Amino acid sequence: MSQINDLWLVGIGTGSPAHVTLEGMQALRDAAVILVPNKGAGKDDLAGMRHAILAVSKSSAQVISFDYPVRDDSLPYGERVDRWHDEIALRWQAAMKNVQRAGPVALLVWGDPSLYDSTLRIAQRLQPAPQLRVVAGITSIQALTAAHAIPLNTINGAVTITTGRQIKDHGWPEGAQTVVVMLDAHCQFQAMPPDAEIWWGAFLGMPEQILIKGRIGEVAASIVALRAAARAEHGWIMDSYLMRAA
Amino acid sequence: MSQINDLWLVGIGTGSPAHVTLEGMQALRDAAVILVPNKGAGKDDLAGMRHAILAVSKSSAQVISFDYPVRDDSLPYGERVDRWHDEIALRWQAAMKNVQRAGPVALLVWGDPSLYDSTLRIAQRLQPAPQLRVVAGITSIQALTAAHAIPLNTINGAVTITTGRQIKDHGWPEGAQTVVVMLDAHCQFQAMPPDAEIWWGAFLGMPEQILIKGRIGEVAASIVALRAAARAEHGWIMDSYLMRAA
Ligand SMILES: C[S@@+](CC[C@H](N)C(=O)[O-])C[C@H]1O[C@@H](n2cnc3c(N)ncnc32)[C@H](O)[C@@H]1O
Ligand SMILES: C[S@@+](CC[C@H](N)C(=O)[O-])C[C@H]1O[C@@H](n2cnc3c(N)ncnc32)[C@H](O)[C@@H]1O
Repeated sequence: MSQINDLWLVGIGTGSPAHVTLEGMQALRDAAVILVPNKGAGKDDLAGMRHAILAVSKSSAQVISFDYPVRDDSLPYGERVDRWHDEIALRWQAAMKNVQRAGPVALLVWGDPSLYDSTLRIAQRLQPAPQLRVVAGITSIQALTAAHAIPLNTINGAVTITTGRQIKDHGWPEGAQTVVVMLDAHCQFQAMPPDAEIWWGAFLGMPEQILIKGRIGEVAASIVALRAAARAEHGWIMDSYLMRAA
Repeated sequence: MSQINDLWLVGIGTGSPAHVTLEGMQALRDAAVILVPNKGAGKDDLAGMRHAILAVSKSSAQVISFDYPVRDDSLPYGERVDRWHDEIALRWQAAMKNVQRAGPVALLVWGDPSLYDSTLRIAQRLQPAPQLRVVAGITSIQALTAAHAIPLNTINGAVTITTGRQIKDHGWPEGAQTVVVMLDAHCQFQAMPPDAEIWWGAFLGMPEQILIKGRIGEVAASIVALRAAARAEHGWIMDSYLMRAA
């Protein structure tokens, strides 16, 4: 059993192995061990993409799978997430029992490790604290603006990045010109100003990618319908959107 | 003389050829022509990096350089920028006179083409409108969070991305927990709450990279001094920072 001395969080972009940077591919080759989660039923596509990236990288690292723990839904939200993160850190350490060769341990992180992702917070729980390295990856925000060929910001303008829950609770962020929303399972854009523009995208970077844009009042219903149909077809969906004040 | 039918804006990250994605490298190889600006004295390092990336890509595209126009400082800001963009679009078209082989035309864009960059807006001026393709690149924001190994957002928290000018005029964005500032030549963080935390970085992704973090009240003066020294030494500087409310 070895402990984790060097932990590398490698951003892999949002669906296409071609999103990975040269640095990311090199890190996968330089790693001794790569930990890959089994997130359970319905997430097989995502596990498949991780394996496709490993194949493209030509990494000869030892790949160790570990099962994701189940969240304890009886606990209040904050505590539930905290416990779950503790448990994942323990699983990483337990997986290290099977390591054959000492050296850096890498994890593949969806998009960029900085953006609405818990891997960095889980890594902070490891004892003794490993040397952390983060390799940036293309975020779903960039996949969205690239797919629509639009700028993120207006000229010299500010941009707010937020979550579905935040805009549900607080509405359109005070004074914001551009708002990007992630982690929204409930199409909160339906409650946003109908004359604002929206650029929406699902399965960004993947062959299934779908895009819709227009004034919210004109396209909200089509997005909701298309999203539901695509979700039913694939069994899951990941979508994000950018809104610009009128 | 050929017109631009397919225009590819390829994000190249913020200083290291290893920031480029596999998709970006492939686009550089698939392009028939690559337009590279000569931005004039003091920007030689940046032109050098573009050529280093082309070398790594093993692209055999025809590389055509064009001179950047000079901004007319007698005009008011908005008009000056508009005219300048018009002029750059004309230079792209003029450079096409020397094209030997028809096919996609690529431009290398610093960081990601969506973020505080005018290339997309210039592309919109081309007549006839070309087919646009955007290839995402690592932004300086991601280079900053990766270098410091920190998350961009707090758990479920919103993030405001803004400019030095905006925070000079409007102060800390209303209610924001995390603020990322770019395009700040005047160290506006000095006027921000002293008990907020700052993570600052310059020359991110380059061998010269420098990082400072701490409470604003404790590190602002060191950042100002180090920034001035580094700028004097290199002849230019690019820096960004993330601030988190206390
Ligand atoms: C847990 S966050 C992870 C974000 C990721 N770290 C990134 O850099 O994009 C998951 C959210 O990201 C967005 N997302 C991730 N991948 C996406 C994709 N391929 N298409 C659309 N949205 C995506 C969705 O808003 C989803 O709810
Ligand atoms: C015109 S904007 C271009 C941003 C670029 N498109 C991106 O995606 O990062 C230039 C600003 O980006 C930031 N920047 C770009 N490269 C940087 C680097 N290597 N290190 C630190 N900041 C950088 C600085 O704030 C600079 O003022």
